[in-house]
Amino acid sequence: MKIDVLSLFPKMFAPMQESIIGKAIERGALSFNVTDFRDYTTNKHNNVDDYPFGGGAGMLLTAQPIFDAIASIKERDETQSAGHVILLDPAGAKFDHQVAERLAKHDHLTFICGHYEGYDERIKTLVDEELSLGDYVLTGGELGAMVMIDATVRFLPDVLGNRESASGDSFQDGLLEYPQYTRPADFRGMRVPDVLISGNHQKIADWRLKESLKKTYLRRPDLLENRQLTKEERDLLDDIKTELAEE
Amino acid sequence: MKIDVLSLFPKMFAPMQESIIGKAIERGALSFNVTDFRDYTTNKHNNVDDYPFGGGAGMLLTAQPIFDAIASIKERDETQSAGHVILLDPAGAKFDHQVAERLAKHDHLTFICGHYEGYDERIKTLVDEELSLGDYVLTGGELGAMVMIDATVRFLPDVLGNRESASGDSFQDGLLEYPQYTRPADFRGMRVPDVLISGNHQKIADWRLKESLKKTYLRRPDLLENRQLTKEERDLLDDIKTELAEE
Repeated sequence: MKIDVLSLFPKMFAPMQESIIGKAIERGALSFNVTDFRDYTTNKHNNVDDYPFGGGAGMLLTAQPIFDAIASIKERDETQSAGHVILLDPAGAKFDHQVAERLAKHDHLTFICGHYEGYDERIKTLVDEELSLGDYVLTGGELGAMVMIDATVRFLPDVLGNRESASGDSFQDGLLEYPQYTRPADFRGMRVPDVLISGNHQKIADWRLKESLKKTYLRRPDLLENRQLTKEERDLLDDIKTELAEE
Repeated sequence: MKIDVLSLFPKMFAPMQESIIGKAIERGALSFNVTDFRDYTTNKHNNVDDYPFGGGAGMLLTAQPIFDAIASIKERDETQSAGHVILLDPAGAKFDHQVAERLAKHDHLTFICGHYEGYDERIKTLVDEELSLGDYVLTGGELGAMVMIDATVRFLPDVLGNRESASGDSFQDGLLEYPQYTRPADFRGMRVPDVLISGNHQKIADWRLKESLKKTYLRRPDLLENRQLTKEERDLLDDIKTELAEE
C-alpha cells in the first residue's frame, strides 16, 4: 500500500515512523510520504489561506496549493493517480473499524489534512470521501489522519506479527474484552481471581466468556444487539441479568 | 491546567508541542509532562509486560511500573495528587465534544497510554475514567491521548486567540458548517455561488443557514433531532425537503 499525506505540519508525522508505520515500511508492506502543500503555493507571500467570500471569521485553505500538490502526487505515481483521496473534515462520515478494514483494501490512499477553520469548497472536487474521527473539533486534520492510518495499516497482511494479531483485539468478535491479569498473583494485596490460576482450561474459557458478555452488556449493549449470540451466550447473559438484579 | 501522560513512547508527544499544546504552554495556561513508565519498572530485564494468567496470546502491561509512576506524579505534585486519571482503553466510554468540555474543567489530568494487548486489571483501581476514541483498535493509547488533549485544551480560557475561537466550529451550534469559498471567485472554471459576492448580508446569512441545515439533514439527521429548531429553521427545513423530493 502507498499512503500519501498533504499537511502543513509534516513534522507531526515523524514519530509515527517509530510505530506500526515504521514496521510496515520495514516489511515492505507500505510506502509513506508526507507532502507539505505550502511548497506548492503560487502566492507571493507563501500563504495557503484567505478570507471567506461573504464575510465571517476564520481563514480558509485556498484551492490552488492543494490542487497542485495532488497533481504532483499523480505525476510521481506510476499509475498517474493519487488513489483514494480522503479529506479530514468534522462533517465527514464517522471513522470506525469497518472503514479501516475497507480502506486497507485500496492500493493507494491520500489524506488531505486541513485546519479547523475550513476548506474552500472546490477542494472537495478532488476528494473521494470525507471522514471524521468524531463529534469534536481538533486543531488540524493531522491527528485524525494518524489515527486512521494506524487503524488501517493494522489490517494489511504481513504487518502485524503472529503474537500481536492473535491477541484478543476488541471489536473483532463484537464483544468487549474480559479482565486480564498478569504476575504477580498477589500485587500489594490485590489478588488474581482463583479461576485463572486453577489450570482448568474449560473453566477459564467459561469465566472469560461470561466476563466479556457482562462487560459488554453493562457498557455497550448496542454491540450485543448487532451480534448473533450462541445458545451458550444467551444462557450466560440470562444468568448475568439475574445476578445483577440480585446485587 | 496540568496534564501528565504515562507512555512507553514519550517521543510521540514531541510534535504536539508545536501545536495548540505549545501555544497553551506559552500562554501559561498549561503545564505538560510525559513520563516514560518503563523508568519505574523494578524488573531486572526492564520489562513492563508479562504473559496473562490463564493463558492466551498477547502480553499485558504489569501493574507495578504504572502504580509507581503514578506515585511519582503524586509526589511531585503540590497537592499530592495525580488529578483525574484517565485510562485509554477500547472498552472505555466514547470521547466526544461534551467529554472534552468536561475534562477542561479539571485542574489536573493524567492519561495512561497502554498497548492494545491490554492492562493488568488491577491498574484500573488507579483510574477515574476509561475513555476510547471509537470502535477501532490502535497500536497504543498515545494517538488517542493526543486527540483528547488537543480537543480538551481548546476549551481552556486564554488558549485560542480571538480569530480562531470566533471561527465557525462545527458542533458548537449543533449544525454542520455551510460550504465556504475564498479567492479567486473563478478557480479553473469553478465559480463561487453568486450570493456570496452579492454584498447582500441578509441573503448571505439566509443562504448559509439553509446550506447548514441541508448538509446536516443529509449527513447527520441525528444532530437535528437533538436540537431545538427556530421557526425560521423549521420553515427552511420544510423547503429543503420539498426541493430534495423534486430533484
